[in-house]
Amino acid sequence: MGAYLAITGGVGGAKLALGLAKLLGPEEVTFAVNTGDDFEHLGFKICPDMDTLTYTLAELSNRELGWGRADESWSFMSALEALGGETWFKLGDRDLALHTQRTTMLNAGATLTEVTRHISESLGVSHPILPMSDDPVHTRVHTPQGPMAFQHYFVRDRCRPTVTGFEFAGIDNATLNPAIVETLRDVRGIIICPSNPYVSIDPLLAIPGARQLLRACHVPIVAVSPIIGGHAIKGPTAKMMQELSVPVTAGGVAAHYGDLLSGFIVDATDADLDGTLEVPTIVAQSVMVTLEDRIALASVALEFIEQLR
Amino acid sequence: MGAYLAITGGVGGAKLALGLAKLLGPEEVTFAVNTGDDFEHLGFKICPDMDTLTYTLAELSNRELGWGRADESWSFMSALEALGGETWFKLGDRDLALHTQRTTMLNAGATLTEVTRHISESLGVSHPILPMSDDPVHTRVHTPQGPMAFQHYFVRDRCRPTVTGFEFAGIDNATLNPAIVETLRDVRGIIICPSNPYVSIDPLLAIPGARQLLRACHVPIVAVSPIIGGHAIKGPTAKMMQELSVPVTAGGVAAHYGDLLSGFIVDATDADLDGTLEVPTIVAQSVMVTLEDRIALASVALEFIEQLR
Repeated sequence: MGAYLAITGGVGGAKLALGLAKLLGPEEVTFAVNTGDDFEHLGFKICPDMDTLTYTLAELSNRELGWGRADESWSFMSALEALGGETWFKLGDRDLALHTQRTTMLNAGATLTEVTRHISESLGVSHPILPMSDDPVHTRVHTPQGPMAFQHYFVRDRCRPTVTGFEFAGIDNATLNPAIVETLRDVRGIIICPSNPYVSIDPLLAIPGARQLLRACHVPIVAVSPIIGGHAIKGPTAKMMQELSVPVTAGGVAAHYGDLLSGFIVDATDADLDGTLEVPTIVAQSVMVTLEDRIALASVALEFIEQLR
Repeated sequence: MGAYLAITGGVGGAKLALGLAKLLGPEEVTFAVNTGDDFEHLGFKICPDMDTLTYTLAELSNRELGWGRADESWSFMSALEALGGETWFKLGDRDLALHTQRTTMLNAGATLTEVTRHISESLGVSHPILPMSDDPVHTRVHTPQGPMAFQHYFVRDRCRPTVTGFEFAGIDNATLNPAIVETLRDVRGIIICPSNPYVSIDPLLAIPGARQLLRACHVPIVAVSPIIGGHAIKGPTAKMMQELSVPVTAGGVAAHYGDLLSGFIVDATDADLDGTLEVPTIVAQSVMVTLEDRIALASVALEFIEQLR
């Protein structure tokens, strides 16, 4: 029996990923992570989605902030501010060590996959965390004022600009991580975590051949809606859908993924959508507050896949 | 009346520099600092001697450690260690902000002189701190095992290797900082601080034309001996002299500087050397423990220059 592949981006996806990692061993589930958010900042190569997952699986994530490490200190940032440095992207002292180590290893010639393995193992994470690609892809958000680097949109400008579209710079020259392709050779089912479809999941799907490769596995592909009752739990998903004139509903998300999906999981709040969707849909408690919520939702997703097989 | 120029390297030099800065205004003394110790580490451009002086003049230096910043925290370093990173060069969280800001500004095209001005002003230092050159110079320590990068010798290997000589890689293409040349146009006197002659002072003197330019100012050049009673207060000066078969005495230092010097200041411990040296020599309390010691020694140096004029 092959492993599951879970495709994930930011915080919501990482919550479900933790649930999956609690139910399945390192041989049984592999995480494919968005790298479109990655950027260079102050000389550091920063991979926000990969780090969110790594810290979450290492149970080091900062639940108070919703990003970064728990047990963090901010001496670096306050000293940088005193020196007139750029402080819009908050870098904790411990978090900074991860970026430094990654940047150093990348500069020495390691691939992002190799670096990520080293870092996650150092933090005690045994489940495979795979960047979607070792090639650089940069998400740009299109706005009426022109295109913006994703982190400028997301962090610096706090998602305030109106979104008119997206662009994944470098995607035409990116290849799907060979380790993901390897996982897909004997995959049992694919879970699209409740991450932002446009900026967390689409970058992977936009890698040339990736969408076709996923479908060609002929295993269930199940997505968990990141939209619950017309809102996103976290992040700009709902705002983006509205600005793109897409219905801000779980159905809007299902329609976005289209024929890729074999199954869709919506929250009880959205149970009335169940009958209206073309894809087989089940209802589950999708708001993940406690660890038990995460495990329960992961369990539902896995059972759903088994049903659909 | 022109300004004094003080040439300095590490901790001992910075102590006297602080004394001078307490006696003289920013228009009255300029500090020319060794950059041969500079190196790239973990992607950061690190300038140990410049930072020692900056932190000292900002009264932020860590007196307990003898290097780095006071009020420092070490979260970055401990997290880096957990990630298997290089930890032989200790980088405090606040200190790291300085290296990050410098590296960012250099990468954006600023000169080291411009960056240093920005950083020192941000830290409230108004006296000019000038790198000896904006061109890269790298001190290598020759040993029976081959040449070593200075910080590998000094920090990583704790000065254990035997020294057979020195090399300042890049020196032939380095030019003396134009701002130092400008200071020399109307200089009142030159002080060589009690720094290691071989690795803190010689790099500047080895810049093509620098030694000639200093002498051509026709003002007193006064050095303070870093060797007191056959020992260096701090650092490997005495060990190096021994390994190079140079007498480990203040006289050995004076001989090393040779005809560059117009005057030499030795500690009371070395008063008997006074008569044996060819250069005019005075005796002063050279061990600087308190701020008052630093100011007193600075005062002696300035008075000696006035005597020699």
